[in-house]
Amino acid sequence: MVALRLFWAEAGGLPADDRGLAYGDGLFETIRMAGQKGVLLSRHLERMVRDARRLGIKVSRQELATVCTQAGQRFAERFNDQDWVLKLTLTRGAGGRGYRPDPGMAPNLLVSASPMPPAADASGVMVDFSRVPLTVNPLLAGIKSLSRLEQVMAAAELGSALFEVIMSDSDGNLVEGTRTNLLLRKNDTWITPPSACLAVAGVLRQWLLERLRQSGQAVFERPLTVPDVLGSECQGLFLLNSVLGIVPVRTIAGHDLPVDGVLATIFNPLELLE
Amino acid sequence: MVALRLFWAEAGGLPADDRGLAYGDGLFETIRMAGQKGVLLSRHLERMVRDARRLGIKVSRQELATVCTQAGQRFAERFNDQDWVLKLTLTRGAGGRGYRPDPGMAPNLLVSASPMPPAADASGVMVDFSRVPLTVNPLLAGIKSLSRLEQVMAAAELGSALFEVIMSDSDGNLVEGTRTNLLLRKNDTWITPPSACLAVAGVLRQWLLERLRQSGQAVFERPLTVPDVLGSECQGLFLLNSVLGIVPVRTIAGHDLPVDGVLATIFNPLELLE
Repeated sequence: MVALRLFWAEAGGLPADDRGLAYGDGLFETIRMAGQKGVLLSRHLERMVRDARRLGIKVSRQELATVCTQAGQRFAERFNDQDWVLKLTLTRGAGGRGYRPDPGMAPNLLVSASPMPPAADASGVMVDFSRVPLTVNPLLAGIKSLSRLEQVMAAAELGSALFEVIMSDSDGNLVEGTRTNLLLRKNDTWITPPSACLAVAGVLRQWLLERLRQSGQAVFERPLTVPDVLGSECQGLFLLNSVLGIVPVRTIAGHDLPVDGVLATIFNPLELLE
Repeated sequence: MVALRLFWAEAGGLPADDRGLAYGDGLFETIRMAGQKGVLLSRHLERMVRDARRLGIKVSRQELATVCTQAGQRFAERFNDQDWVLKLTLTRGAGGRGYRPDPGMAPNLLVSASPMPPAADASGVMVDFSRVPLTVNPLLAGIKSLSRLEQVMAAAELGSALFEVIMSDSDGNLVEGTRTNLLLRKNDTWITPPSACLAVAGVLRQWLLERLRQSGQAVFERPLTVPDVLGSECQGLFLLNSVLGIVPVRTIAGHDLPVDGVLATIFNPLELLE
C-alpha cells in the first residue's frame, strides 16, 4: 500500500499533472456532517474503498477514516451548530504516461468543507425529464467517479424552479437524476432501477433499500419506465441523496404526482451519525 | 465573453474547486510542436473552440492562439531542436453549485509542455482488443473532454509489448483505441467509424480523410467490424494520433495484418507546421 498524499483545499489545489483533472481518473464523496460526525459515514468510506479497488487505486478505509477525523476536528467549529458538507476527492495520483495508469502511483486526496446546500421543499419538488441521455459503462456502473460531464450537461437544464432532471438510458428507462437516485412507490411496493444500470449507486439508496426490506416491505430492483411514473398506479416518486435526504416529487414535466410522507419519518440524519 | 484565466503548469495547478477536477468538466488538446510551431495547430484550436461551444464554455480562438504563441516562446528553447508536446487543458472554471454550471463563469486554461512520447515502430505495432467497452453519449460524441475514465481503464490493459488496445461499442463494432482513431484499408477503399460514434474525433483523422478524398480515393465512414479487420480482404489497419502520426498495425490479438507503407508518405509533420 502506497501512502496517499493529503491536500487541504483551503491550502491550494492538486498538482498540475494530477490525473483527476487530466482524465477524470478518481472518485469523490460528499458527506453530510453534524459537528465532527458524518451521516452514513461508514457507508461513504466503504463505497470509496470498494470503487477505488475497482479502478485499481490503492487506498485503505483506515486512511480515509483518519482523514475524516482530522477534517471533523478542523472544520466543525467553523460551521457552529450548522450541518456542513465534507468532500473527499480521491485521484489516482499525479503524472504517468498518458492514459495508462502506473500501478505504483501514490493517490492524492483533496479534502474540502462547505455549507449545506439549500434544503429541498419537504412538500415536494418540481422535476423534469432530461434531454441528456445517460450512458453507463458496465465496467464503471455505480462508481462515483470524477468523469461526470453527462451530469453537468444535464444539470445545465436546471432553471431556478426545477430541483432536478431525470436522465434516461438509450432504451428510454428512467435511471437517475443528476445528483439523486430514484425510488418509486407503486401498488404498495417499491421500485428502483438496478445498481448495474446506475451511473452512481448512492449510499442513501442502499441504506434505504435495506431498511425497507428489513421492515418487510417489497422492494424490486428493475428498470423504471415513464408509464411507471405517470401511470395512475404511481403512489409517489422519491429522489435520494445522502446530503439532501429523501425528497418527494410533486410535479414531473408538468404532471402532478401523489405526495405522501411515508418515507419522511424513516430517514432521520441525526440517527445516522457516526 | 469572459476572459479566461491562464495557468502555467510549472507554476502550480488549478484552484482546488476547479470543475475540471471535480467533474471532468472541460477539454484538452495535445499538440505536437517543432520549435514555436504546431502540427495541425489551427485544427486543434478549432476543435477546442467548437467543442467548448458544445459544452457552453466560452473561449475564443484568438485567446487560444495567443496562449499558443506565448507557450512557443516560453518552451521552444527548452527542447532544443527536439519536437515537444504542448498540452492545453480548458475547464469551465472554478466553483459553482454542484454539477450545475454557472453561465457567467470564467474558464481556466492550464498550459504545460512535455517531451515527445516514444515513437511508434514504423514497421507496425502490436495491438489487442480491449475488454473495456466504450460508451459514447450522443451529446458528447467526438469531444476530447476531461471525462476519460474509460480510456484510462482500457489503457491499464497495455503491457510493455502492446502499443494500443481497440475499444468496441455495445454492438461489438470497433470504434477507436484509447488514444487513436482507426482507419482500415479494404478492397482498395478506406473505412473509418463515423464521427457520431467516436469518443474523440481526432484532428489527424479529419485531416487525413480530407486529404484522401482530395486525392480521389474512396473513403467510407461506417461501423468497423472485427471481420473487416481479420478478414482476408483487409489490406491494413492504421492508428491515427496527431502527436504520434499514422501508425500501421502489424499484429492484432495475435493475428498478423498486412502492413504497407501507403500512408507513410502522406503525413509529414514538418509540412503541417503552423
